[in-house]
Amino acid sequence: MRTAICERLGIEFPLFAFSHCRDVVAAVTNAGGFGVLGAIAYSPEQLDTELTWIDERVGGRPYGVDVLVPGKIDASALDANVRLADAVPERHRDFVAHLFAKYGLTGSSPGAPLGSGPVPGPAAGLGPLEEPVAPGSVGPGSVGPGSVGPGSVGGRGGAADEVGRRVTPAGATGLIDVALKHPIGLIASALGPPPPEMAAKAREAGVPVAALVGTVEHARRQVAAGADIIVAQGTEAGGHTGDISTMVLVPQVVDAVAPVPVLAAGGIASGRQMAAALALGAEGVWCGSVWLTTEEAETAPAVKRKMLAASSLDTVRSRSRTGKPARQLRSAWTEEWDSAQESPGPLGMPLQLLMAEEAMTRIGAAAERGEPGAVELANYFVGQVVGQLDQVKPAREVVYEMVSEFADAVERLRRLSG
Amino acid sequence: MRTAICERLGIEFPLFAFSHCRDVVAAVTNAGGFGVLGAIAYSPEQLDTELTWIDERVGGRPYGVDVLVPGKIDASALDANVRLADAVPERHRDFVAHLFAKYGLTGSSPGAPLGSGPVPGPAAGLGPLEEPVAPGSVGPGSVGPGSVGPGSVGGRGGAADEVGRRVTPAGATGLIDVALKHPIGLIASALGPPPPEMAAKAREAGVPVAALVGTVEHARRQVAAGADIIVAQGTEAGGHTGDISTMVLVPQVVDAVAPVPVLAAGGIASGRQMAAALALGAEGVWCGSVWLTTEEAETAPAVKRKMLAASSLDTVRSRSRTGKPARQLRSAWTEEWDSAQESPGPLGMPLQLLMAEEAMTRIGAAAERGEPGAVELANYFVGQVVGQLDQVKPAREVVYEMVSEFADAVERLRRLSG
Repeated sequence: MRTAICERLGIEFPLFAFSHCRDVVAAVTNAGGFGVLGAIAYSPEQLDTELTWIDERVGGRPYGVDVLVPGKIDASALDANVRLADAVPERHRDFVAHLFAKYGLTGSSPGAPLGSGPVPGPAAGLGPLEEPVAPGSVGPGSVGPGSVGPGSVGGRGGAADEVGRRVTPAGATGLIDVALKHPIGLIASALGPPPPEMAAKAREAGVPVAALVGTVEHARRQVAAGADIIVAQGTEAGGHTGDISTMVLVPQVVDAVAPVPVLAAGGIASGRQMAAALALGAEGVWCGSVWLTTEEAETAPAVKRKMLAASSLDTVRSRSRTGKPARQLRSAWTEEWDSAQESPGPLGMPLQLLMAEEAMTRIGAAAERGEPGAVELANYFVGQVVGQLDQVKPAREVVYEMVSEFADAVERLRRLSG
Repeated sequence: MRTAICERLGIEFPLFAFSHCRDVVAAVTNAGGFGVLGAIAYSPEQLDTELTWIDERVGGRPYGVDVLVPGKIDASALDANVRLADAVPERHRDFVAHLFAKYGLTGSSPGAPLGSGPVPGPAAGLGPLEEPVAPGSVGPGSVGPGSVGPGSVGGRGGAADEVGRRVTPAGATGLIDVALKHPIGLIASALGPPPPEMAAKAREAGVPVAALVGTVEHARRQVAAGADIIVAQGTEAGGHTGDISTMVLVPQVVDAVAPVPVLAAGGIASGRQMAAALALGAEGVWCGSVWLTTEEAETAPAVKRKMLAASSLDTVRSRSRTGKPARQLRSAWTEEWDSAQESPGPLGMPLQLLMAEEAMTRIGAAAERGEPGAVELANYFVGQVVGQLDQVKPAREVVYEMVSEFADAVERLRRLSG
């Protein structure tokens, strides 16, 4: 299968895999697709290590990184004098403590101040930190669903601060500087129009910039700001999403930005869906959720089990994990934050995210110990395709199955059209 | 283009057109597609007239009708001793009066009891009366968007009662009895599993039954109850919809009910989208919104203008028109009911629907007189594809363009897959 984007990026299949897990990125790239590492889960030093690991395994095959600089962010994240953990109001900390008590979590110190708890294991990856350019729209910057990565988030106040500041222009630029020292083939960004400095650095290095959008207007704005590739992401996607479905959004974006190539995201985890996306005019597909249940993914085991069992009705767009509407598994966490009488309502980004990641680290550890309340609370970003994911497979096999089913779908269409 | 459904129904293109307007039904059928008349907009006598009109124009080409018997309905509709208009609480009538005053509607008697106002013109068609089988899912029974038809709804209390009772088992059966006297090729139903009596009558007459669903579970249930064709409708559709997008829902339903043929609905108004739907495994497409801006459609002029100007962000799923979540144009009507402090919240079905149709009849007339407040309030059921509809065309031309673009999309896919 050869689209223009395949030629341009030197890949066999126009299948992009967004993941916070280097193993998934390398596996998809080695299978002929294009892996994209969610860099926001890492400090610049960690990112360098991860990319070196990938470089050593992909034999020069192309891969990319995904970063972001949200257009709107809590002012605290831009003020170096503020300790982000301290900016979380007591009401919100109390509500988390209430949830820990209600769901019977042990082994943690529920009433302790944010950032003071133990770090029970590898902290959760940041997921879709990327932010909409404007209200009412999207731009997860990434489909969102990544997996548990080595990036520490909520363990200590200092770490939380460091992470929260990765989404500032300075923080993201630090990540890009590191990435550009590696032979990356793409920088994906899910902010508003890429900051001129980032676009200039990418251009100088000859690395194309992809931008995620959820509306036609944002697609036009991204192209005007120099994006080389548009990722049109439908509401069914995991992570931060807008309202418009992939089926409706993709052809409109394709027409609006032609001849700029468009990748489709949201609702794509099989070859039939890949064929549908290309029928809509996309040059390729950008998938996140489908990798979460692969062998390589470091998705927390309790969450992976939930995903394998979930139907497509089991996701919800909720502000409870990042402060912005993000599609994720419906769980006691989303239900309590969104519907409980006592809920103080979510904070903005990145405070809700830091608080939620801190809590999820504890919840994940308790879920691993088999505590049923923790299993009820556990969740992660995932799209509606979660209803299709019922088997753990190697990422390579997912790629091959998608490509093979794609060919079958095209052949069926060809026969039908005579 | 020949799918199994084309062979079975004797049509050239597997393109189904749901409309409350007989002109659209006849035009699509004559162009090689399959028109489906939303029968619920009519009394049995009116339906007989409409179907005779169609029979005289389609020269034996196949068309169908769409009816429904909601699984859940306000008890008042099942009690012949209740005058439905009287079952609307005063708070709700007062809120409508408040809206009329706030938006400066003239020429109507805002405070008057429901059913006592003048009938300023043909009352609105009922739109998607059909009801989900169970909470959290769909089953608009019809994509919903119809157009203004001759069925009178809210004009007089008696008429409102007659209309409200069309959605009872007895009422729907009356419509089916009339329809089966005509050479119809399909009965579509958006209720729960088709009532045994209806299924038996259809089977006896050799007429296949199609059922609309929004979840895999409902698809299975419909097939178990004897549905011959499943219409899998995504959340992006107009009218009553569920949560799952077309891209995600269709392949799951196709796999769950095979070899029962599946039509895709929601997000389909172009040949590329039709090709995408068939790539997902559907045997054909079921479209509603795209006909609302055709020359033939009797869509209220103010609403048609709004649709032509709307983007895909301008729809909302709101209970404010029927009592159940139905996708429609966002307008002052939906905003006030869904967000205003004073809103009493919507009633159940069919009371909210009767009240809304009564109000919309007055609003439509005022909008025609150019009253700006009425134009702000006016809306109608439509899917997210409304963002693609920017030109008034004959329905025949829509069919030909979709078929031609479908062929182009398949050819492009064929080239890409080598």
